[in-house]
Amino acid sequence: MLSLHHTGYVVASIEQARAGFLAWLGPAATCTETIEDPIQRVKVAFLISGTAGQPQIELVEPAGPGSPVRKFLEAGGGLHHLCYEVDDLEAELARSRKLGAVLIRNPRPAVAFAGRRIAWILTPERLLVEYLERQARVPE
Amino acid sequence: MLSLHHTGYVVASIEQARAGFLAWLGPAATCTETIEDPIQRVKVAFLISGTAGQPQIELVEPAGPGSPVRKFLEAGGGLHHLCYEVDDLEAELARSRKLGAVLIRNPRPAVAFAGRRIAWILTPERLLVEYLERQARVPE
Repeated sequence: MLSLHHTGYVVASIEQARAGFLAWLGPAATCTETIEDPIQRVKVAFLISGTAGQPQIELVEPAGPGSPVRKFLEAGGGLHHLCYEVDDLEAELARSRKLGAVLIRNPRPAVAFAGRRIAWILTPERLLVEYLERQARVPE
Repeated sequence: MLSLHHTGYVVASIEQARAGFLAWLGPAATCTETIEDPIQRVKVAFLISGTAGQPQIELVEPAGPGSPVRKFLEAGGGLHHLCYEVDDLEAELARSRKLGAVLIRNPRPAVAFAGRRIAWILTPERLLVEYLERQARVPE
């Protein structure tokens, strides 16, 4: 089962974008601290609307010149990807690839999700999808 | 209260994109008929994941050369806007404009939503937002 965890939104500066987004989402909204992910070469912060079950908005800022979102930002930035929580990351990747999706990034733990694993695909219709494993792995 | 109704995704052809999206969303997913909106100059179809409470994905195809999504498609298409359901359309528009959002399109009934009213804004952070009135208006 795919459930939408967040929409990713690329900005030049989380610091500058955060307050405007928060005000727009309303008084119940909150924003996490900005988290830098050196593996993904991005900074991210999550806007949480305050209404149960609502997907979050992830603000994404390039970290360093080799950031994978740098080009996207230079082309204007904005809505970038959809992130879905899944029960079984490997099964979901296999299923997507069978349907013609391209694996962009193999599963790996993400600092933004307290070590839960993520992976990236691009569907044949060119939707960029991040999969987020629902449960953290128990260390072996 | 803002609740995410759908993410809008611009494609060259709904006919061509529909099957791939449906397969990717999984066996419980369905897609509405394609609806042409002559006022908005787009064709749209809604992908429904089959899981309660999940936002839909709206496929949007330009209808005619003057379509407002034509340029976006020529630049590559893809994720285009977020649509939120709101209780009070006018109040939400007033609130957004007070925060610096630009009104892109005044409230009007939409064929894609059985006559429920929609309106469009662009936030100062350049997020394109469609507001959808939760309840249809009772004719006066």
